[in-house]
Amino acid sequence: MTGDFQHLLSQRTQSMQRNQIREILKVVSQPGMVSLAGGIPAPETFPIEELYKINEAVLDRYGAAALQYDRTEGFAPFLEALAGYLAGKGIDAAADELLVFNGSQSVLDTLGKVLLSPGDCIALESPSYLGALSAFGAYQPSYISIASDAEGIVPEALATALEQHAIKFIYLVTTFQNPTGRTMSRERRQQIADIVKRMNALVIEDDPYSDLRYRGEAVPALQTFAPDNTVYVSTLSKIFAPGLRLGFCLAPGLIRDWLYTAKQGADLHSNTYAQALATEYICGDYIARQIPKIIALYAPRQAAMLGAMDAHIPAGYRWIKPEGGMFIWIEGPPGVDGEALYWRAVEQKVAFVPGKYFYINPADGLSTMRLNFTRVDEGTIEAAIATLGQVIRENSHD
Amino acid sequence: MTGDFQHLLSQRTQSMQRNQIREILKVVSQPGMVSLAGGIPAPETFPIEELYKINEAVLDRYGAAALQYDRTEGFAPFLEALAGYLAGKGIDAAADELLVFNGSQSVLDTLGKVLLSPGDCIALESPSYLGALSAFGAYQPSYISIASDAEGIVPEALATALEQHAIKFIYLVTTFQNPTGRTMSRERRQQIADIVKRMNALVIEDDPYSDLRYRGEAVPALQTFAPDNTVYVSTLSKIFAPGLRLGFCLAPGLIRDWLYTAKQGADLHSNTYAQALATEYICGDYIARQIPKIIALYAPRQAAMLGAMDAHIPAGYRWIKPEGGMFIWIEGPPGVDGEALYWRAVEQKVAFVPGKYFYINPADGLSTMRLNFTRVDEGTIEAAIATLGQVIRENSHD
Repeated sequence: MTGDFQHLLSQRTQSMQRNQIREILKVVSQPGMVSLAGGIPAPETFPIEELYKINEAVLDRYGAAALQYDRTEGFAPFLEALAGYLAGKGIDAAADELLVFNGSQSVLDTLGKVLLSPGDCIALESPSYLGALSAFGAYQPSYISIASDAEGIVPEALATALEQHAIKFIYLVTTFQNPTGRTMSRERRQQIADIVKRMNALVIEDDPYSDLRYRGEAVPALQTFAPDNTVYVSTLSKIFAPGLRLGFCLAPGLIRDWLYTAKQGADLHSNTYAQALATEYICGDYIARQIPKIIALYAPRQAAMLGAMDAHIPAGYRWIKPEGGMFIWIEGPPGVDGEALYWRAVEQKVAFVPGKYFYINPADGLSTMRLNFTRVDEGTIEAAIATLGQVIRENSHD
Repeated sequence: MTGDFQHLLSQRTQSMQRNQIREILKVVSQPGMVSLAGGIPAPETFPIEELYKINEAVLDRYGAAALQYDRTEGFAPFLEALAGYLAGKGIDAAADELLVFNGSQSVLDTLGKVLLSPGDCIALESPSYLGALSAFGAYQPSYISIASDAEGIVPEALATALEQHAIKFIYLVTTFQNPTGRTMSRERRQQIADIVKRMNALVIEDDPYSDLRYRGEAVPALQTFAPDNTVYVSTLSKIFAPGLRLGFCLAPGLIRDWLYTAKQGADLHSNTYAQALATEYICGDYIARQIPKIIALYAPRQAAMLGAMDAHIPAGYRWIKPEGGMFIWIEGPPGVDGEALYWRAVEQKVAFVPGKYFYINPADGLSTMRLNFTRVDEGTIEAAIATLGQVIRENSHD
């Protein structure tokens, strides 16, 4: 039969899965739905007016160079700009130690490609960022969940896992984690760094959210405690525009070299024009004005959500109060079914993400829920949380 | 020893190779070098003045939507625009049958990811586009070269190979091929289509150059002869701007579905802003004015090269005269060493690509050379070919 190509699929294709959050989000596009489900920036945070000027500056300054094939590692002025941006976060990086990718998702995919043979083991905090599992999954790994508490991954649990298993790398979102919002404490970072250095382990530190800090003091990247053992991954998606797909990494030499080679085969290089826009965004100091605007939009939304939760979410439910990021994580009492609550809430036109999808073993997170506060205004958030509280109360009689 | 991560590399990483053409091109950046080596567009072909207007139109029309996360398959208006563009080439595609990638290189990489398990066999014309081997190589395939003549791959040789080997797909650049410049004839396309349909085989038709036709009549894409058996791959790199990394494909349903899933895990989606720029470039009819300008720049350059070759390249060397594209391919008489000629020519400040790098078995192409005519003006081309003729004559006395 012509066109039946099932037999042509690779073994790895069998282990690929559609991003389940994206599938669930399909109902979110129904008219009138209030979505606390996504993890995407508010469009009001995009510097659209500024982009008229930034575009002109890019065409004036770089001309054809912004439109031509370019080096695999990244547009040279952008690498310089990124090094400066990272210095401002206390991360010591030379331009030639960085690599630019199509969003941080593409860094994770390429790390999987370079590091993972089928069956290789990845250590994860629990719960974990689902998109990373979607990237790594194509390379047929196995996963081991490391116990985590309010400060992040538990050092003793990590040390034991590294002793007992051949772990290719440890994947962590260290600050304002997706999905929990939690931040690994400074002391915990030092402990984790000591362990990975002692055991010559490799950490992938994914850091998309640390600029979205609404209060409290910045914590240095885990990378700064163990630079030779960390691949630091970040993105401009949350502080410029995700549609530009500008992710990047700072990696130890050997890993960087192979990421470069893999990227050369996979897509030659990342979008030159987007990199030139970002160069102007950073060097023209737009970023220094834009981040405070983004924070000024998100901080009251987070405060509104936390306030409404205090008022409306019944006793027995717990949540931490992150100092930044995009998410609040709720754990219900034992027996609560977060996905059942999801479908009831959707009937009332409020959507969130059932937390079990962020677990390797979904049974570990049946009672959990992830709420996003960046996309809707304070009044809408307060009404949505009131609705969610009502849904929870109605369903606790079941 | 901390930082020694050699043991962490995947099995597939061992089979990755740096793009050898890029390594050779390093000497090309020496001052005063005339490069006939690259395969990149002349910067004069980029519509820079128009982009000032296109940028404004995109920000006016799409605003935040051009900067936001988007669907994995591509920016909806761009998919519509592409369907219209393909209709103009006689290719029948609905917007929802297309997928957008980061350049056609990324389509090839993702096809490899979805289709290739280690050891799987790919059939190639000989010589072949090196970048494709660089994409597929990461998935540890084996290759089989199919005999090719001036009209492209030889039908009987393909049929025999399909009978004797389990071939995952056949990779072909059907029009103005890189590196040879040759175009598969209409009759040959029909013969190849009949074979792949009869044997339920899958063809990847890579078509980056067909719009660069300087004379003669367009030949319909192989895809139009065997739509259920062809993944049609193309790009806007040669007719808009390669730095925007806009590749795309039209694939049979099952293959498209898995490409979608693989892309979702690999990078979520392609650059929204670049897709919006390309939408405006196509729908604002800029493309209809720009392609003739590109042709008006390249056609005389090709004519200058072919004329100079008639005048300066010694007897015994053969080349076809392509009706378009970016390359002229020279085959020297037996015993000629194209790489030795390369280094002698580089001493005289003229660079090209030794053709052996385009062969699975480099020994099959020792006497061959690829010349690009798109980057330098007619006078420079004539002088460079005169120099090359001189180098050839001097080295034929060895």
